[in-house]
Amino acid sequence: MALKPLGDRIVIKQVEKEETTKSGIVLPGTAQEKPQIAEVIAVGPGGIVDGKEVKMEVKPGDRVIYSKYAGTEVKYDGEEYIIIKQSDVLAVIE
Amino acid sequence: MALKPLGDRIVIKQVEKEETTKSGIVLPGTAQEKPQIAEVIAVGPGGIVDGKEVKMEVKPGDRVIYSKYAGTEVKYDGEEYIIIKQSDVLAVIE
Amino acid sequence: MALKPLGDRIVIKQVEKEETTKSGIVLPGTAQEKPQIAEVIAVGPGGIVDGKEVKMEVKPGDRVIYSKYAGTEVKYDGEEYIIIKQSDVLAVIE
Amino acid sequence: MALKPLGDRIVIKQVEKEETTKSGIVLPGTAQEKPQIAEVIAVGPGGIVDGKEVKMEVKPGDRVIYSKYAGTEVKYDGEEYIIIKQSDVLAVIE
Amino acid sequence: MALKPLGDRIVIKQVEKEETTKSGIVLPGTAQEKPQIAEVIAVGPGGIVDGKEVKMEVKPGDRVIYSKYAGTEVKYDGEEYIIIKQSDVLAVIE
Amino acid sequence: MALKPLGDRIVIKQVEKEETTKSGIVLPGTAQEKPQIAEVIAVGPGGIVDGKEVKMEVKPGDRVIYSKYAGTEVKYDGEEYIIIKQSDVLAVIE
Amino acid sequence: MALKPLGDRIVIKQVEKEETTKSGIVLPGTAQEKPQIAEVIAVGPGGIVDGKEVKMEVKPGDRVIYSKYAGTEVKYDGEEYIIIKQSDVLAVIE
Repeated sequence: MALKPLGDRIVIKQVEKEETTKSGIVLPGTAQEKPQIAEVIAVGPGGIVDGKEVKMEVKPGDRVIYSKYAGTEVKYDGEEYIIIKQSDVLAVIE
Repeated sequence: MALKPLGDRIVIKQVEKEETTKSGIVLPGTAQEKPQIAEVIAVGPGGIVDGKEVKMEVKPGDRVIYSKYAGTEVKYDGEEYIIIKQSDVLAVIE
Repeated sequence: MALKPLGDRIVIKQVEKEETTKSGIVLPGTAQEKPQIAEVIAVGPGGIVDGKEVKMEVKPGDRVIYSKYAGTEVKYDGEEYIIIKQSDVLAVIE
Repeated sequence: MALKPLGDRIVIKQVEKEETTKSGIVLPGTAQEKPQIAEVIAVGPGGIVDGKEVKMEVKPGDRVIYSKYAGTEVKYDGEEYIIIKQSDVLAVIE
Repeated sequence: MALKPLGDRIVIKQVEKEETTKSGIVLPGTAQEKPQIAEVIAVGPGGIVDGKEVKMEVKPGDRVIYSKYAGTEVKYDGEEYIIIKQSDVLAVIE
Repeated sequence: MALKPLGDRIVIKQVEKEETTKSGIVLPGTAQEKPQIAEVIAVGPGGIVDGKEVKMEVKPGDRVIYSKYAGTEVKYDGEEYIIIKQSDVLAVIE
Repeated sequence: MALKPLGDRIVIKQVEKEETTKSGIVLPGTAQEKPQIAEVIAVGPGGIVDGKEVKMEVKPGDRVIYSKYAGTEVKYDGEEYIIIKQSDVLAVIE
């Protein structure tokens, strides 16, 4: 993976809608905050972010539900990624 | 339960309206903040959240009154859940 | 009382308007912040709330003047209650 | 005095307009912040308020100029009072 | 001086426009923040203000340029004063 | 390089669109936050910024994805630069 | 120099447009934040500002790029100055 996020940011890749349907997960969104399911691709080092200690709790390969609010879409080598802060991850699917 | 919330988040499941009527609880909502009654399904680990120590005080099985403001709805295996922060829990029903 | 508030929240019950008139208290409200008189029914444990130590200074049975701004109305077993933070209590009536 | 303010709040009573004229003080107000002159009736205990140590520096009997912004009017036993935070006191008149 | 400001507040008196012209100072104001020149009349004790240590750095007699934004006008014994926080002083004229 | 940024600021230079296409990176922007790819030209010393310790984690020559929100464009010796805070860097491309 | 800025403020003097052209610097401004080039005339003492330690890093004679947002224009002895906070300095030109 060529994108190395800074601080408490993570790079995620949205799970395909078809795949979402198979696992039986449907995520209705509101206008204010659109929930999403994605796979974690790369994780920043954490540490001191905006003066506060942040410990990274997700790892590459985790499937997460996240809030798309404030995320940034990036297209790289033909793949689409999203860069969010770990605090935008609501839950890990186990 | 397959959804593991991060930080101070909890996964709750709204109590059915029929059940609400039986227990004699009615929760009128305002436009700004809609109160709700729900059962706690899963609880995050707490710890340092946004630079502040958070101790989790609710546990799975608790029935809580919460403020829906900022919560996120998730549908999983045919069930509907809501992910909120513990600070959105107003009171536990004992 | 079956409602156990979390953190620095308290459950209060509005004093009847008739009773208010008898005690000679009239509370004119503004659009922004509507003052109210109520009896304290249940008090949260206090402690660390949003990273700050909060010591509870009201107790069940206290009659208080409070700012309704941000409070949440709850109806339980036929009674109406309001859940507010202790910082929304302006004064205790002694 | 039956009203006991919490934290850094104080109960004040507006000085009559006639009296204001006698002492030669005129307080023009702006739309944003309306200055007022009042007598301090009761003073909260101070201490930790919103996580910050507050030391009370006014006492009952002090005449103060205050900013009415955020104050709450209360009528008790036929008298009108205002509850403000000490930080809304701009100056003491000596 | 009969007005004793609290905390980090100071009482200032605007320098007359005529006097301003003599000293060659012209202070154009914007709609957002209107700069002003004034003489310091009284200075609060400083100390802990809103949880932060404030050291007073101006003294009675100083001529200062200040930002009128958030100041409060007071008329006392026929004289007009303004009460501002020391942080609204931009510079001292030496 | 003649521009020396202060604190946690960095000077970057946008990568040419042609070059962007060659490396296969496409960055769709939203109205709220327009992502960009750029080369780091100069890096501030970090240290205490707004009361918080900031450690610089990018270096001249790094290629970064950044959020243009809040950046300032500067033209110098015929070249166009942008000055941003390091926290506006989302990820480094490796 | 007769203007002595307080805290983390500095007094700067805008470089003439003609001079700007000679040095080859062009600073396009946005409506939100208008970048400017100026010479530093006087520097405040720094120290604790709004509860945070600020170390002054510019000195009289430095040429700086600054963000005019929040600055205040002052005319003194026929010269025009601007008073800004050091944090509004984006970079020093070396």
